[in-house]
Amino acid sequence: MRATVIHGPRDIRFEDAPDPTIEAPTDAIVKVVASCICGSDLWPYRGDDELDGPRTIGHECLGVVEEVGADVRGFAAGDFVVVPFDHCDNTCAACRNGAHSACDNVAITQSGQGEYARVTQADGTLVKTDGVPDRDLWPSLLTLSDVMATGWHAAVAAGVRAGGTAVVVGDGAVGLCGVLAASQLGAETIIAMSRHEPRQELARRFGATHVVAERGKEGVAAVKDVLGGVGADAVLECVGNAPAFDQAFRVARPGATVGFVGVPHGAEVPLRVMFSKNIGLAGGMAPVRRYLPELLDLVLARTIDPGRVFDLTLPLEQVAEGYRAMDERTAIKVYLEP
Amino acid sequence: MRATVIHGPRDIRFEDAPDPTIEAPTDAIVKVVASCICGSDLWPYRGDDELDGPRTIGHECLGVVEEVGADVRGFAAGDFVVVPFDHCDNTCAACRNGAHSACDNVAITQSGQGEYARVTQADGTLVKTDGVPDRDLWPSLLTLSDVMATGWHAAVAAGVRAGGTAVVVGDGAVGLCGVLAASQLGAETIIAMSRHEPRQELARRFGATHVVAERGKEGVAAVKDVLGGVGADAVLECVGNAPAFDQAFRVARPGATVGFVGVPHGAEVPLRVMFSKNIGLAGGMAPVRRYLPELLDLVLARTIDPGRVFDLTLPLEQVAEGYRAMDERTAIKVYLEP
Repeated sequence: MRATVIHGPRDIRFEDAPDPTIEAPTDAIVKVVASCICGSDLWPYRGDDELDGPRTIGHECLGVVEEVGADVRGFAAGDFVVVPFDHCDNTCAACRNGAHSACDNVAITQSGQGEYARVTQADGTLVKTDGVPDRDLWPSLLTLSDVMATGWHAAVAAGVRAGGTAVVVGDGAVGLCGVLAASQLGAETIIAMSRHEPRQELARRFGATHVVAERGKEGVAAVKDVLGGVGADAVLECVGNAPAFDQAFRVARPGATVGFVGVPHGAEVPLRVMFSKNIGLAGGMAPVRRYLPELLDLVLARTIDPGRVFDLTLPLEQVAEGYRAMDERTAIKVYLEP
Repeated sequence: MRATVIHGPRDIRFEDAPDPTIEAPTDAIVKVVASCICGSDLWPYRGDDELDGPRTIGHECLGVVEEVGADVRGFAAGDFVVVPFDHCDNTCAACRNGAHSACDNVAITQSGQGEYARVTQADGTLVKTDGVPDRDLWPSLLTLSDVMATGWHAAVAAGVRAGGTAVVVGDGAVGLCGVLAASQLGAETIIAMSRHEPRQELARRFGATHVVAERGKEGVAAVKDVLGGVGADAVLECVGNAPAFDQAFRVARPGATVGFVGVPHGAEVPLRVMFSKNIGLAGGMAPVRRYLPELLDLVLARTIDPGRVFDLTLPLEQVAEGYRAMDERTAIKVYLEP
């Protein structure tokens, strides 16, 4: 097949790669009909994550089942499926407790930005639609494979509740989906911390009641100004680096929870602050499968439209251009069509 | 008055000290009828916390109101009161959100191991009983000023729920109270990690269904053995140092929460583990006033008897001997009578 391969920092090529095959009887092969680039793909792209050599990349995709292993019961060739980036059996103790991302059999999609992808634990991982959904829904459906589920997880982990207040740190696609999640979960005041005008606009469209462009101390002051002098009930940390963690804990009120979903890169936890202010920290890699049925209903009913995070569409073969656009922040998120 | 003064590491003296006085109209002066030594008092005793010079010590006490400031409405001389170690106004945003320990006007009892103590924000802080409770209830009532409320906070922060599983790391008085709290909150399986026979016995009396004496990897294996191969739903971290934090995260199942209440001393948060296993961390300094009415009812109804943590009673003037006993772990917790 043709697939996206990362050879090194800023070296993304769309080229020939081995076809994925059924390796275990619980596997499925999915023909990718839409995929995209994740903020976390930028870590190796920027050289912040080590590479052991060239490898296929891409873990977010939507597709049609091409082939299933002998033990797969719930899916057959032709099914239109959302592919959670983190595969799970949906039966182990971790899954039963809602921690599907720590499933005993967890695996990650390896060639989502390719023509085909192997999905392990297909019966546990995949969720299918009735027939092929309207084409205009595909971008929103694609977000359910990671970014929208991840934003949702940030909101759930942060304990967003109806009538409460929330601050979202990070205006990438995850942060914007976090705004949408907080809104859907009923938060009354939602502050998006963003300095970029197009992202601010989308945040407002997704339900942000306020936008704070300042950062650091000024950002804290601006947030407290909105919230009557205190921090927020719930803080969604949607970046994963040290400045974002610092910002998140500083805009949390005593007794609040910081929900974190960004892959930690150099972030430190201010344990003494957590102790003295009773601020909790929860979240982690999103258990996509846990939220998928509920989010799928919301998308199919056109109640939420997270697909709006895509502001650039490219043919898959131009994937390298998509990485450049996201790296330079000229695009929020790039939709790739085979 | 006569009070306990710490002069330096292992230098505890019971000696003359200035009488506490009403400094603000919201203050009250309490005549101490019972006090005790906290595990956290051992930090400066052992030289692990810096001292700026001699100071009175002791933050857990039970007493009778001696005098109140002009603005105190709810209390008068003669009232028998439980004194939360962390004073609070019980009206600010933090208190309204249950984070009384981060109250805008938070302060800590300074001479609890003395004849008198000043209580700030008396109307918000204190809780009184109807008349003088039976003398045999005093030890349990005294624990409500800190240790039982702190153990309770660990259990609440860890999300202990009816039918769930819990592990308690730390067999000091806080850990033992954590066992009692987990039991009261309905946990079905409660594992106390303890190597000391008298503490194991008390843990069982407080509701531990299992005791694990092993630590480190062996401790993790023993816990998982009890829990059918997985970690616990809720973990109570009741120490605050690095080995205890490490143990706590290693016995937590994916999706669990670690409730921490020990003052952090060298502890580090395994952020990558929290991310990959979706383990949350919550807790901090206990908001004693939040839980006090409920816990008071439980003690007065003789439903719980946390006073059993006291296994040595000394006259206040022999307080130095009490510190030695707790430092050498020959006593779990020392009850001091004036």
